[in-house]
Amino acid sequence: MSAAADAARFGPALDLVQGRVTLAHGAGGRATAALIAQVFLPALGNAWLHSADDGVVLPALGERLVMATDAHVVSPLFFPGGDIGRLAVHGTLNDVAMMGARPLYLSASFVLEEGLPLADLVRIVTGMGAAAQEAGVPVVCADTKVVERGKGDGVFISTTGVGALPAGRDLGGARAQAGDAVLVSGSIGRHGMAILAARGELGLALSVTSDSADLSGLVASLLDAVPTVRVLRDPTRGGVAATLNEIAHQSQCGIWLDEASLPVDAAVQSACELLGLDPLNLACEGRVLVVCPAEAKAAALETLRRHPLGAGAACIGACVAEPPGVVQMRTRLGGTRLIDWLSADPLPRIC
Amino acid sequence: MSAAADAARFGPALDLVQGRVTLAHGAGGRATAALIAQVFLPALGNAWLHSADDGVVLPALGERLVMATDAHVVSPLFFPGGDIGRLAVHGTLNDVAMMGARPLYLSASFVLEEGLPLADLVRIVTGMGAAAQEAGVPVVCADTKVVERGKGDGVFISTTGVGALPAGRDLGGARAQAGDAVLVSGSIGRHGMAILAARGELGLALSVTSDSADLSGLVASLLDAVPTVRVLRDPTRGGVAATLNEIAHQSQCGIWLDEASLPVDAAVQSACELLGLDPLNLACEGRVLVVCPAEAKAAALETLRRHPLGAGAACIGACVAEPPGVVQMRTRLGGTRLIDWLSADPLPRIC
Repeated sequence: MSAAADAARFGPALDLVQGRVTLAHGAGGRATAALIAQVFLPALGNAWLHSADDGVVLPALGERLVMATDAHVVSPLFFPGGDIGRLAVHGTLNDVAMMGARPLYLSASFVLEEGLPLADLVRIVTGMGAAAQEAGVPVVCADTKVVERGKGDGVFISTTGVGALPAGRDLGGARAQAGDAVLVSGSIGRHGMAILAARGELGLALSVTSDSADLSGLVASLLDAVPTVRVLRDPTRGGVAATLNEIAHQSQCGIWLDEASLPVDAAVQSACELLGLDPLNLACEGRVLVVCPAEAKAAALETLRRHPLGAGAACIGACVAEPPGVVQMRTRLGGTRLIDWLSADPLPRIC
Repeated sequence: MSAAADAARFGPALDLVQGRVTLAHGAGGRATAALIAQVFLPALGNAWLHSADDGVVLPALGERLVMATDAHVVSPLFFPGGDIGRLAVHGTLNDVAMMGARPLYLSASFVLEEGLPLADLVRIVTGMGAAAQEAGVPVVCADTKVVERGKGDGVFISTTGVGALPAGRDLGGARAQAGDAVLVSGSIGRHGMAILAARGELGLALSVTSDSADLSGLVASLLDAVPTVRVLRDPTRGGVAATLNEIAHQSQCGIWLDEASLPVDAAVQSACELLGLDPLNLACEGRVLVVCPAEAKAAALETLRRHPLGAGAACIGACVAEPPGVVQMRTRLGGTRLIDWLSADPLPRIC
């Protein structure tokens, strides 16, 4: 179509500097079309998203599918090291990658609050498009709704990822076995602490940035080099403590952590001490926990450390037979501590 | 696990009668596990959802994939003929079916507002589970977040559907051709009017129920009988007017509607007259628009009418060459009316 015909159809250009989201942008008429044409397609565009049908047609896959979904409600929308758009891509891609699959496609659904500055939306969708492009995984279908002022909080983004799982590869929390090693790909707690700092409630200046990152490349290298890996999981909401408790519960192994070997950045550690928080409970968005047979530990660590996102990898513990389902830690002082699930995270809305 | 061990892990039973959603339910710890175990799994449960890994592994498909996503923010959450849970299943299943695919799997992500009565959540998730079971399409993965009171509106549900598209089947809005017939599977505008009535703002009692329904069975019968169908689309947000404008825009056909042949229930028609609304702008959630070659019209109508969801099917217009991209209507009085896209829907948050 000509630019004039497009302008006639989509109305005057949106004011992407001073403008704000209105209820009309979510109502399915001309204003919705303008938002799609002027905000979403330029940032996320690919042939699939441009098709404008109710759904999108994708090539046949010979392999098993992996599917994962996450709602993202992080507050604030922008934080050191990322934003809700990049996080919504990384969070779901990583969940697909944790199953051992190659992430291929993303869907995205947006719930916008009336009054959201269009400039913020552009920045978020641009971050999302950049993260998707860096990962090589397009957002192939999307939907946008708008709710009245005071019925939302800027923007919520739900993403669903689809990937392909190579034959013979089967990972999962139930596969951990007594004797296995437990590794982590780098320092823990950065995302949770970065969000806390971004909220400005700490009363101290912190130089912590979120670790939000696409882990699919790191994971692919690891699985190529060490096909005996049994469990991969990214310790997001609830942190390493909640994630290891899930694995212990699923596998009915016990897990012993070694406090001295836990990688924690100095800034995160000292902020935790000041605030009475435990890095084990803080979310990561660019780290993976790996459970593998003890004899594969050295190869796994070496492979992780060769990748930029795994440079700080460490062995942090081991799986044991007894007591089943319980996570414990040997402290620096030689004592023993139960690592329980928290009933409530100290930090709501970190992802 | 024993019931005692589960109770120890998931804490005391939730009060599903008087209880309310708290921020802890979204924080990834014990309270989240309780909500999953006591609310989501009983209503939506299947082997995939129970797997408790980051993603779910599904069988390989030899066919092309279809993927579609929708955010659902309907207000109120419960309305005559449905609720947000059933709508979130039907809306996305139908988008997959509109591409000619067999819907296979759904993901669901929930954004809950602190304070939502757990009884409402149970009712919604139960409706969702029932709709998924009736359609034979399981919710295989899910995620839940909780936002503070006043930062959401009860519950928002985003669903993504994946389906399989048989070889040789290719539908889409761009395929409409001059000379094609335009059909609709039944009376229009019921969903939009039911939501409007449920908001209690009309000042009149209406007996209109939403038409929310799974169209995949109707569509499968139609495509079996009439493989030459070119476009299927459900006229949801924006109604028949917006949907036909999309098809006209994609195909660069003109479309002529015949007002006298539009099926509109008497209750919807009279409420529209009272309120100054046009049924062409009201959303349907259980109707399909069909574009097919003129010579296939009789077979398509007959097939639609044999199905309970298509009993009221009618031919409502035709595609023409000129003017391209424009939808017009021959009125009952013999005049001509331009059927434009509304700039803003008169009814925000109908789906």
